[in-house]
Amino acid sequence: MQDGFHGELAPVGSTLVTMARAAREAMRQAGAALLASDPTLAQQVTVRDAEIDVLSRVVEDRVYDLVGRPKADSQDVRRLMTALRVAAHLERMGDLAVHVARATLRRHPAPAVAPELAEYFGAMTTVADGLAGKIVAALTADDVVLAGQLDQDDDAMDELHRRLFSAMLSPDWPLGVEAAIDGALLGRFYERYADQAVNVGHHLVSLWK
Amino acid sequence: MQDGFHGELAPVGSTLVTMARAAREAMRQAGAALLASDPTLAQQVTVRDAEIDVLSRVVEDRVYDLVGRPKADSQDVRRLMTALRVAAHLERMGDLAVHVARATLRRHPAPAVAPELAEYFGAMTTVADGLAGKIVAALTADDVVLAGQLDQDDDAMDELHRRLFSAMLSPDWPLGVEAAIDGALLGRFYERYADQAVNVGHHLVSLWK
Repeated sequence: MQDGFHGELAPVGSTLVTMARAAREAMRQAGAALLASDPTLAQQVTVRDAEIDVLSRVVEDRVYDLVGRPKADSQDVRRLMTALRVAAHLERMGDLAVHVARATLRRHPAPAVAPELAEYFGAMTTVADGLAGKIVAALTADDVVLAGQLDQDDDAMDELHRRLFSAMLSPDWPLGVEAAIDGALLGRFYERYADQAVNVGHHLVSLWK
Repeated sequence: MQDGFHGELAPVGSTLVTMARAAREAMRQAGAALLASDPTLAQQVTVRDAEIDVLSRVVEDRVYDLVGRPKADSQDVRRLMTALRVAAHLERMGDLAVHVARATLRRHPAPAVAPELAEYFGAMTTVADGLAGKIVAALTADDVVLAGQLDQDDDAMDELHRRLFSAMLSPDWPLGVEAAIDGALLGRFYERYADQAVNVGHHLVSLWK
């Protein structure tokens, strides 16, 4: 434990860990639902997101309570402000997983992702899962090294995003405008999910440095 | 003034007003640059966004300083937490204006928006400007009524967004995949800008209620 959430702040830290696990699970399910065109699994993402939203309110309430106490010193204030920001990013990660899940629900029983694009979204789901997994581990172990690695993992997401767009913009693109729009927006949701994860990493690194 | 930022908190409130003005101007410029394919104007959006980022750090530093003072009571803490959230949304509005501006720069000297879609983006720019204008006014006058109107204005943005997608997905769509992807992503940036503005309104309403 370096300089994380301990003492009176420990419940805030453990709620963030629960949120991060749920944000990870939400995108894992959303990606699996997308690739298997599974509406039941896609629905579960909405449930997971609702849990994340509730946990976010819990973090906020605890922070508002703790930050005003006379015992809170300036380091506590920094930790609590960081907790608020991390919670906001995790909440947004849950929202983005829901956006991915909604594409599955909207197109069902047709697949939301054309077979030509499945490999990109499979790989993006794996990268997203890795990023979220490192956030969970960084929050659990207060591990600044893990948190600092998120930028490199995000490069992998950006590269997949570029390749996805190249495929859709190639003269050989066999599908129409609708499949390309779906692909572009889904790609954007994954990219933003990764950005939010990187933001969490930056907040943790600046807290611990 | 209902229950806004006064006394020691006044500088936080006035910095938020300056940020909101800049976030409004950024999207106004980004929209004008998009419709006129004007790279010089598009570049100015980046400058405006950099100002917003600096102001956001100013708000954060002031909040961190004020929230830890023994004089801060629970109402002050709520106001300061609201200021942090509002600043985060305004910062994101600046980022989204930059995304719109970048489309202009990427496609120049070709237009980033096909003539077929210009009317939608003209209208979305107007709605975005109205939303941001209400935020400025609500922050300046602590006006809960204005802040509460943002949801309705956002409905207008959602309707334009739907019509934009209908145009691109129509069998008569005369342009290719690339123009549709550009249109879809630009539409998303405007929609998110409006969402952020609505979020600011919600935070102000819940602070003042």
